[in-house]
Amino acid sequence: MKNPDEREIIKTFQRRFGKPSFLGDDVEVLKIGSSRIIVKSDMLVASTDVLPGMKLSDIARKSLVACVSDLACKGVKPSFATIALAIPRGFTRKMVNQLAGGFALASKEFGLKIVGGDTNQGKELVIEVSMFGSNNKNMPTRGGAKTGDIIVTSGPFGYSSSGLKIILEKSKASTQFLKKCKKQVMRPAPRLQFGLQASKYFSSSMDSSDGLAITLNDMSEQSKSRFVIFGFPTGYDVIEFAARNKIDLKDLVFCGGEEYEMVFTVSPRHLDKVRNIARKLKVPLFVMGYVARGKDVVLMEKFKPKKIKRCGWVHLRS
Amino acid sequence: MKNPDEREIIKTFQRRFGKPSFLGDDVEVLKIGSSRIIVKSDMLVASTDVLPGMKLSDIARKSLVACVSDLACKGVKPSFATIALAIPRGFTRKMVNQLAGGFALASKEFGLKIVGGDTNQGKELVIEVSMFGSNNKNMPTRGGAKTGDIIVTSGPFGYSSSGLKIILEKSKASTQFLKKCKKQVMRPAPRLQFGLQASKYFSSSMDSSDGLAITLNDMSEQSKSRFVIFGFPTGYDVIEFAARNKIDLKDLVFCGGEEYEMVFTVSPRHLDKVRNIARKLKVPLFVMGYVARGKDVVLMEKFKPKKIKRCGWVHLRS
Repeated sequence: MKNPDEREIIKTFQRRFGKPSFLGDDVEVLKIGSSRIIVKSDMLVASTDVLPGMKLSDIARKSLVACVSDLACKGVKPSFATIALAIPRGFTRKMVNQLAGGFALASKEFGLKIVGGDTNQGKELVIEVSMFGSNNKNMPTRGGAKTGDIIVTSGPFGYSSSGLKIILEKSKASTQFLKKCKKQVMRPAPRLQFGLQASKYFSSSMDSSDGLAITLNDMSEQSKSRFVIFGFPTGYDVIEFAARNKIDLKDLVFCGGEEYEMVFTVSPRHLDKVRNIARKLKVPLFVMGYVARGKDVVLMEKFKPKKIKRCGWVHLRS
Repeated sequence: MKNPDEREIIKTFQRRFGKPSFLGDDVEVLKIGSSRIIVKSDMLVASTDVLPGMKLSDIARKSLVACVSDLACKGVKPSFATIALAIPRGFTRKMVNQLAGGFALASKEFGLKIVGGDTNQGKELVIEVSMFGSNNKNMPTRGGAKTGDIIVTSGPFGYSSSGLKIILEKSKASTQFLKKCKKQVMRPAPRLQFGLQASKYFSSSMDSSDGLAITLNDMSEQSKSRFVIFGFPTGYDVIEFAARNKIDLKDLVFCGGEEYEMVFTVSPRHLDKVRNIARKLKVPLFVMGYVARGKDVVLMEKFKPKKIKRCGWVHLRS
């Protein structure tokens, strides 16, 4: 009997704790007194989440990005964060300063205040961020997609997975492409402003940081709809990189992760409004499909639907 | 040049992030819209916070206790918690169930709801808990002690440090005493009800989980007052254990940690009200000193004041 992976562990926990208000979505909603607080907790663990060569300031920033990205796709402005750290022995003063500097710069970048936390000693660097905001409007859930809605992503996919192939598996790439991929992995840019302005038009949304295939499958399942995909949301340089290294483009685009883009569905009648917001903010939208009756995520290849299964990173999968 | 320890790391962070609303206290206060939310974040790391032989269900419970205890001493009822986990490879289904079961039982014990979190893979078990409550009354800070106030603890000190001596250094003890000490270490009982009912009478308060000497020194510094100690808040069996093993009783009582008792100051005119609440809840108060003009924490030994310095556990101290 295999040990449980991340998905099974989460299910065990959900069985125990019953259905919270907003079960299985990107954020938690707390009703405290008359207030409605939106909370997101994310843990970054050095041995699984940090690439060789990544700067401590970028690691600190990325631990905030994960939460910002989740809040953004629900249209929630992050106001505060607490940070809990496990720090290994041998961490020098300079390293602490780099970490603190990264947090300080990122908190300015995203307009939030770091209000405290907890410092501990551990075997490896672990950064847990809890981020708080409020939202009195209706937030888009993962399960709100309606038949006829358009499926859109806030940016291209495939750069982070290409970056991993280059760094870890030595795939061949131009210096310029490597630079672009590295930036995606080391300094991802969550679409905060776009989420804040455009989320009111979304019928459903989800942060894609676990990979596009997992994201689409979660949304399709929770929306009880079929997601029909006809286009790959990616760049021409990713297509070129895949061809040159004989890598399946589908794997790069759908089975990556850490893109921190939002995937959302929108009624055709709102699409132009969303496009206008995106244009002003220079967010490169990709229209990738539509919502139909039925189930599963399917890719239309030569007019025959082919199922896109869950792929991508799952913690503790053996 | 030595690497920075926990205290220095915290100072570095505080320098960077400026003074939050409630700097250097047990909890953080967030003002979101018109609401005032009290947050406490605490991280438990297996390699530093878990004793050999401790059950996973007790580890789960203790990670919640740390936050409950901090909120309790400020009179804040915990309503919700999020949990972020790093889980090492080799964690079986049974172990996940024990962990989840511990969280479920403890959330019932403390009357709070676990609303979500984050699951990751790491080199060792790390549990981060963020806990939320609200409080519209004035909370006692660490810095509110006034000259003439009485210094009180909500229970005895010395059992957790005696327990560590027995388990890790094989000090001699009776089976009964060992059992009592183990219970203190494995299943500490935070004084939640007492804090909720009595904190309105406190002029200052602090959770003592870093050790009594650190707690008293922090309160004395932040209150800009002298804390004069004339009694040891401990049990006769701890005194006996110290004598039998030739351990300095002062070390056991003041330099331990993980007692999860609250230390508070109270004006003499409110002391009876606090005593009555304690009696009803079977909380064994210890009056240990008074607040005077001046600085430092001093123990009156043979009528001569002797400074009680910071001692106890500091993460990353070499």
